[in-house]
Amino acid sequence: MEWTKRHLLDLEGLSQEEIELILETAKSFKEVSTRDVKKVPALRGKTIVMLFFEPSTRTRTSFELAAKRLSADTINIAAGGTSTTKGESVLDTARNIEAMNVDLIIVRHASSGVPHLLAKNLQASIVNAGDGCRSHPTQALLDMFTIKERFGRIEGLNVGIVGDILHSRVARSNIIGLTKLGANVTVCGPSTLMPRDIETMGVKCSYRLEEVIEQSDCLMLLRLQLERQTQKFLPSIREYAKEFGVNKAKLAKAKKGIVIMHPGPTNRGVELSAEVADGEYSVILDQVTNGVAIRMAVLYLLLGAKEPAVVLA
Amino acid sequence: MEWTKRHLLDLEGLSQEEIELILETAKSFKEVSTRDVKKVPALRGKTIVMLFFEPSTRTRTSFELAAKRLSADTINIAAGGTSTTKGESVLDTARNIEAMNVDLIIVRHASSGVPHLLAKNLQASIVNAGDGCRSHPTQALLDMFTIKERFGRIEGLNVGIVGDILHSRVARSNIIGLTKLGANVTVCGPSTLMPRDIETMGVKCSYRLEEVIEQSDCLMLLRLQLERQTQKFLPSIREYAKEFGVNKAKLAKAKKGIVIMHPGPTNRGVELSAEVADGEYSVILDQVTNGVAIRMAVLYLLLGAKEPAVVLA
Amino acid sequence: MEWTKRHLLDLEGLSQEEIELILETAKSFKEVSTRDVKKVPALRGKTIVMLFFEPSTRTRTSFELAAKRLSADTINIAAGGTSTTKGESVLDTARNIEAMNVDLIIVRHASSGVPHLLAKNLQASIVNAGDGCRSHPTQALLDMFTIKERFGRIEGLNVGIVGDILHSRVARSNIIGLTKLGANVTVCGPSTLMPRDIETMGVKCSYRLEEVIEQSDCLMLLRLQLERQTQKFLPSIREYAKEFGVNKAKLAKAKKGIVIMHPGPTNRGVELSAEVADGEYSVILDQVTNGVAIRMAVLYLLLGAKEPAVVLA
Repeated sequence: MEWTKRHLLDLEGLSQEEIELILETAKSFKEVSTRDVKKVPALRGKTIVMLFFEPSTRTRTSFELAAKRLSADTINIAAGGTSTTKGESVLDTARNIEAMNVDLIIVRHASSGVPHLLAKNLQASIVNAGDGCRSHPTQALLDMFTIKERFGRIEGLNVGIVGDILHSRVARSNIIGLTKLGANVTVCGPSTLMPRDIETMGVKCSYRLEEVIEQSDCLMLLRLQLERQTQKFLPSIREYAKEFGVNKAKLAKAKKGIVIMHPGPTNRGVELSAEVADGEYSVILDQVTNGVAIRMAVLYLLLGAKEPAVVLA
Repeated sequence: MEWTKRHLLDLEGLSQEEIELILETAKSFKEVSTRDVKKVPALRGKTIVMLFFEPSTRTRTSFELAAKRLSADTINIAAGGTSTTKGESVLDTARNIEAMNVDLIIVRHASSGVPHLLAKNLQASIVNAGDGCRSHPTQALLDMFTIKERFGRIEGLNVGIVGDILHSRVARSNIIGLTKLGANVTVCGPSTLMPRDIETMGVKCSYRLEEVIEQSDCLMLLRLQLERQTQKFLPSIREYAKEFGVNKAKLAKAKKGIVIMHPGPTNRGVELSAEVADGEYSVILDQVTNGVAIRMAVLYLLLGAKEPAVVLA
Repeated sequence: MEWTKRHLLDLEGLSQEEIELILETAKSFKEVSTRDVKKVPALRGKTIVMLFFEPSTRTRTSFELAAKRLSADTINIAAGGTSTTKGESVLDTARNIEAMNVDLIIVRHASSGVPHLLAKNLQASIVNAGDGCRSHPTQALLDMFTIKERFGRIEGLNVGIVGDILHSRVARSNIIGLTKLGANVTVCGPSTLMPRDIETMGVKCSYRLEEVIEQSDCLMLLRLQLERQTQKFLPSIREYAKEFGVNKAKLAKAKKGIVIMHPGPTNRGVELSAEVADGEYSVILDQVTNGVAIRMAVLYLLLGAKEPAVVLA
């Protein structure tokens, strides 16, 4: 199949085939980052802007490295330093950036829908690097890549997603992507952090971690946003850790070969024990490695490079 | 003619021929930014530092893109992060940067004269990216480029500059550049924001926007620096908008083909209505696009690349 | 000899031969920065991250330029913007960065030992860009390079190091490096800022600046960290300047050809008078220039490029 989309806003908008094309393309790019010279000329002379209204060193670094390894020129714009402090609207800021003949804007914003707003109004390609509680498509794609890398497939796997489902754009994007590719998803967390009608998204819902651990091939733990709104939904962090934190004892009843994922940064001792985070089950650092490959694939496909075989040779 | 200057500090120091050479060179570079591979090797291996004591995402981004599209290496230094917070003087900071074999320093500073101070004391080329209320030469150059692009000429055109003339380095640089190229300039704004003896700069002065609109081929609106000193000179923003803001109704009596300019970021509803900013008269985004081309031309000429024809081929 | 080390953590760990190899390699790279095209392809496709938990524009810029002139891809991560503010540990942050297939991490941290911790736990090469009061190896190397450049040798020279010896990682690294290369080092400063048992490091100790000036071939002045802890150890800055500040009058009894060094940024009027800082004795800006060459040499050697002769041709 051929790639035709101009933006990556969320996974709702992608077909199963399109998701699989991204995962397949990322596989080739993962190899590039292991080379002695980890760089291909695919996007030479393209301009990619990282427009981050929320700070995020990891995601920004991952995208920036992806762009640089494709030989694109990159510009960092952090919200604090932008004209938005001068009363300029987000759209106006983006329009001005685009006017400098920018090819692609990677945007992160605390409000849901900002990437969609930009995509509707600009000619440049837009990549959503996280918008509000809504979507974080490249995170879900790198998670799916990591699962497929481990299990050889996604279809038919049991995936448990544990934590603050209500506020998590990572959960939301993974639910959409994983169910599209045929996984059986169960979400689990405190009832105060569970969206009503979550089953309408095609997932099962459980409030007992033990049950989810027993069934899962893969357990995806969500970061508890201690610095954000989450706290008022919880009696205490300690209580959360006791009930929904994963430690080695709780994993005793898990399937052999269970895989533990976390989008990072982890709160050790909260979502999972240090022992689990650094242990044999954990693929947390694989997720980080795969993040660069997924983002290279996304940038590459969106900017319409034509002959991957040639470029990667 | 051949370019001989080492710095770009203001437009006072440039002859009409030199200004025209910059505009002409920018024309070739504008085409580069529309290419699939928007990059030329002209300044490969040159080091360009952006030393910004005042934050400015737009201007910094425009210069950074210009430098990168010429293949120069770029370094960003923001005032907050520099040794000036450790009691080091501006000149000492710049001398230390230069000692790293830097070819060109782009400087923005809240105090008038800083770029001149650096130029007098350093070997590196200096580009003024805005100093106090004094000069902003690349902004005036990109404005002139935009006017010439629209009208085919600058000589004989009537240009109105509207707003806070007193504190505007954009106004000052444009007055000098535009009169040098033979435009008839009229400045207009509240009397509290009008420099005494402004006519000695070779411009007419009006306090009635309607009058200026009727005569002008081109109307240049200045940003009201709401976050700065401007406010104490005005009864209220609402009052200013009513008297000096441009909306569609006021443009009814304008010449056919009038062009509306603004250096950005705009305060919609203050200097101009959203309708005008996004309307057919507006060339605001063209100004942004042309800014990159002008800055490429300036960097290219100052760093003395020899054979443009070859480089651009 | 051949380079075999993977990290540069401090000078304790380097042999005399290894230090001399770095100085020798830097000599070739110094020439690169004077070329018209100041860039070699030695580290093309390598990824170098600057992970600065303490701000430092000069050191960061010097490393960034060094990396860029070797054609490496660079990423800046400033502490304020990292997940450490989200409760992630330094090691966890570094592990995540490394997982993006990063080749080398340049780290600065207020706590002594952080670079060693990273080196012990990561596969990536680690360069110490300053840790607490402990080490600043590239600063000492550039200082030694500058001395050797002036005197043709280091062995047998008398070097005075003046100031806050107690808190200075610059002093500590220089003492270790200079004594290893056979210089006679005398440290000098207020008794409250002198480590007990400093003589066990193989240096002489003096509390009289005049005496040190008379004997020295080279005088290395340390920055008084006015913004840090130093102040409580001193009666007053004025008192310090009077007793340990260097001015032209005090240099009257110095050896002919004495060289004055300072790691910068200088507090003019404190550690030295402006006249001395800008005078004939001063090699302060040479130190800055040489810093880029030393850092190019270090990055180059650590990343194991094989054939310098070919690369530099």
